Amino acid sequence: MNGADSLCDTLLAHDVDVCFANPGTSEMHFVAALDKKPRMRCVLGVFEGVVTGAADGYARMADKPAATLLHLGPGMANGLANMHNARRAKTPMINVVGDHAVYHLPHDAPLTSDIESLARPMSNFVRRIRNAADVSRATVEAIEAAQQGEGGVSTLILPADSAWSPAPGIVHKAAEPVRTPVSESALKRVTEALRNGKRTVLLVGGKGLRGAALEHASRVARHTGARLLAPGSNARIERGQGRVKIERIPFNVDLAVQMLAGTEQLILVGAEAPVAFFAYPGKPGAFAPEGCEILSLTRPSDDLHKALEALAEAVGAKAATPVFAQASDRLEPPSASTAFNADSIMRGIAALLPENAILCDESVSSGRMTFDLMAGSERHDYLQITGGAIGSGIPMATGAAVACPDSKVVLMQADGSGMFTMQALWTQAREQLNVVNIIFANRSYAILHNELKQVGAGEAGHNARRMLDLDEPAFNWVHMAKACGVEALSVNNTASFLDALRAALQHKGPFLIEAVI
Amino acid sequence: MNGADSLCDTLLAHDVDVCFANPGTSEMHFVAALDKKPRMRCVLGVFEGVVTGAADGYARMADKPAATLLHLGPGMANGLANMHNARRAKTPMINVVGDHAVYHLPHDAPLTSDIESLARPMSNFVRRIRNAADVSRATVEAIEAAQQGEGGVSTLILPADSAWSPAPGIVHKAAEPVRTPVSESALKRVTEALRNGKRTVLLVGGKGLRGAALEHASRVARHTGARLLAPGSNARIERGQGRVKIERIPFNVDLAVQMLAGTEQLILVGAEAPVAFFAYPGKPGAFAPEGCEILSLTRPSDDLHKALEALAEAVGAKAATPVFAQASDRLEPPSASTAFNADSIMRGIAALLPENAILCDESVSSGRMTFDLMAGSERHDYLQITGGAIGSGIPMATGAAVACPDSKVVLMQADGSGMFTMQALWTQAREQLNVVNIIFANRSYAILHNELKQVGAGEAGHNARRMLDLDEPAFNWVHMAKACGVEALSVNNTASFLDALRAALQHKGPFLIEAVI
Repeated sequence: MNGADSLCDTLLAHDVDVCFANPGTSEMHFVAALDKKPRMRCVLGVFEGVVTGAADGYARMADKPAATLLHLGPGMANGLANMHNARRAKTPMINVVGDHAVYHLPHDAPLTSDIESLARPMSNFVRRIRNAADVSRATVEAIEAAQQGEGGVSTLILPADSAWSPAPGIVHKAAEPVRTPVSESALKRVTEALRNGKRTVLLVGGKGLRGAALEHASRVARHTGARLLAPGSNARIERGQGRVKIERIPFNVDLAVQMLAGTEQLILVGAEAPVAFFAYPGKPGAFAPEGCEILSLTRPSDDLHKALEALAEAVGAKAATPVFAQASDRLEPPSASTAFNADSIMRGIAALLPENAILCDESVSSGRMTFDLMAGSERHDYLQITGGAIGSGIPMATGAAVACPDSKVVLMQADGSGMFTMQALWTQAREQLNVVNIIFANRSYAILHNELKQVGAGEAGHNARRMLDLDEPAFNWVHMAKACGVEALSVNNTASFLDALRAALQHKGPFLIEAVI
Repeated sequence: MNGADSLCDTLLAHDVDVCFANPGTSEMHFVAALDKKPRMRCVLGVFEGVVTGAADGYARMADKPAATLLHLGPGMANGLANMHNARRAKTPMINVVGDHAVYHLPHDAPLTSDIESLARPMSNFVRRIRNAADVSRATVEAIEAAQQGEGGVSTLILPADSAWSPAPGIVHKAAEPVRTPVSESALKRVTEALRNGKRTVLLVGGKGLRGAALEHASRVARHTGARLLAPGSNARIERGQGRVKIERIPFNVDLAVQMLAGTEQLILVGAEAPVAFFAYPGKPGAFAPEGCEILSLTRPSDDLHKALEALAEAVGAKAATPVFAQASDRLEPPSASTAFNADSIMRGIAALLPENAILCDESVSSGRMTFDLMAGSERHDYLQITGGAIGSGIPMATGAAVACPDSKVVLMQADGSGMFTMQALWTQAREQLNVVNIIFANRSYAILHNELKQVGAGEAGHNARRMLDLDEPAFNWVHMAKACGVEALSVNNTASFLDALRAALQHKGPFLIEAVI
């Protein structure tokens, strides 16, 4: 057994049995090790942004990390943007990044770079493996780090000689992640706050947005009169019929400030105090009004479900009925003659989304209003871009589909962002994943046209249009899908869209709908 | 005038008049500034790897830097792989990376990251702009750093409030880069070495591989009996009919060691001592034989042309005739019935390459033998991937074509590597660039199949094949090109390839040939 085998065995011993990969020469011994382990599912991404984005989507649904395999510093660099999104989503992930053999590093061969410096900003844990005997211990530390607290991105650097040298056959075992009960003092403080009559927002994030945890949150809100909200960006929300209705803090600064206006107390549960995505001259960065008291119920290691249950108990809300999505919240599909635009597309999706679907959202400017429309859809999981690093959607949908082969994954994808990592369509075809990719083809970075106005720069002139528009030529997503072996259709009216969506939802394997709006 | 205007003015005052861009919200004021300056040519890349790779190709041909515009840490991260290649090519480049307004950073908004940590490994110079008044001074420092020595990658971090705040109208002026004459002591040492009768290799890199400089090197080699070689990876070589013939050190470790076997002295001119791209168990990392003396004629600040001229003078070789490519070195096109493979494709390119073409090479495993075949082609510039970070080719060709609108750019592109940054085809269509993209479609990471054998792992099994093969499904480059608005043809025999290449070379605007081998 060599170090690569030891790595593979240690991952499998911890039930990490999917490896999203784009290997190179320095990772060949790890490839050879994976080749001996049919239990490990190896999924090729033909660009590293696909690899890390898929690992993110996978772990959000599987609730356990995937491994990734990346080729030295530059290969990992290609995956950093989606590692960034994963870090913001608090997704557990184990990156294995190959490096030169230790004795080769002083040569400064062409692919040499400072991997630690590149990895640290997008990782919660970075560890260079020292030698083959260190592999299993280091892997265990990476797994522990990925699963501790709310979850995070671990990056292991595997020098080629640590992979190919003989290793002891010992497979170390990771400690179970610590899940602390809510602290008595925090519970007392929050309980008192919820009884003091002030205007209160209960902001619930992370795993507090899953079924039973969210039901407790809803009971607390209903019983105390607090307003229940979700942060603007979330890794995963369990939503739809029979599940709790929750509003989300908007992206737009003015709307967010308006939503929180008058709030005297903000109680955080697995969430951070909400802030603007960007700074704008003359606008606030933090959304909570001045003087609003901010309290946190939980620490990163707390079990959010148990914390919310304890809070419901403490405020006497255990018998309250959560606010569930009602039959009346469900939308009908738009009529065939409805004007074709982002709104009619989203209404179509909301109406037709099948039960247990996974709805992935990188619709950016087209999708700001999506959230409320889908409240009454069939029960589903909602996954969205979390870190603002565009190019998250297609890989995320790909990884979610690997995790949940029995669910239909529906992706709402802005065209400009989708172009960053469209290579993920090839992986969908390779793995025959059940993903319906819906492209909002407005052929511009529409969000940036708005932002240009927001900063007071007025209408775009020649140079600005050259940087913000995606026409001349319009990118053809049907050709792109066909290049990757994915069936596709282009539609430009509501009737055709609804027909295409119905057909796509019945289709086995990946499908793409280019919705030209 | 605000900081963004100041940046734009300072760039233009230094003749930096092309900006490859993928902006976001935090760069909107810089977009607005560019919008006011029609002299600045703004070229959109729909992924940042396109942006930095194009800036690399541009500067290699223009011999001056382009600016890039990148969106915070994650946007820059997408461009790091091609910044890495640029750094290895010693390409001058000015990256402008937006960041949040200074007062917004403490909020740790979703897109916040440690940009310096990400930038440093792939930059020679990193500087955070302090305020609007600092913009012009910082930009000048970045320009100076990019042009000093052999050239390098400068990264400027532009906080949004430095861009939007009022700035003084002062445009600072960069010092001219220092070009030192060769040191007398180094010249003396190398001259003596060239006369001591030992077996000597003269390894010339960087700008020593341009026309007149290379002629001096060839005179020295011819006159002294030294063997003239180029490094394995080079930013740009002026080659073809009427230019100096030069061999290149091979990628393959065994072949490289064999080429340098018996060498007693290695004289470096603008080059580093050659090393293996990767470490392999039991194989050497450095190519020069044990005991070989290594001398360097030049320092990074030396003018390589003048240094080689002084060396020719010092060894008494000024009157020697350089070894030029001869008419007899020119290949005829392969006959129509020749078996269709990488060799026949390259022979076709070698025969048909038009005068003053720019030949870009990311053919990887298909193209290892290309170099010698092209020695007798029409005079051309040869640009290749330098840092091993794949996804260099299509962006590089794109940038070279922006720099040289009157030349035909011919790209030899491996399919697996091309898929990393294929979005550059869209920029070729948008800008109507004269690029003939030739895809070597072997539908595998062929190099990695070889490497798997090299590491002794034997033939690929199921998991390895799933990670090394690009079939199931085969990626269709004709559809991909059409998605981007680029005309394309697929060919699978030598006759059709030659017909397609002849037609493509006559074609205005971009063209793609998928050569299925």
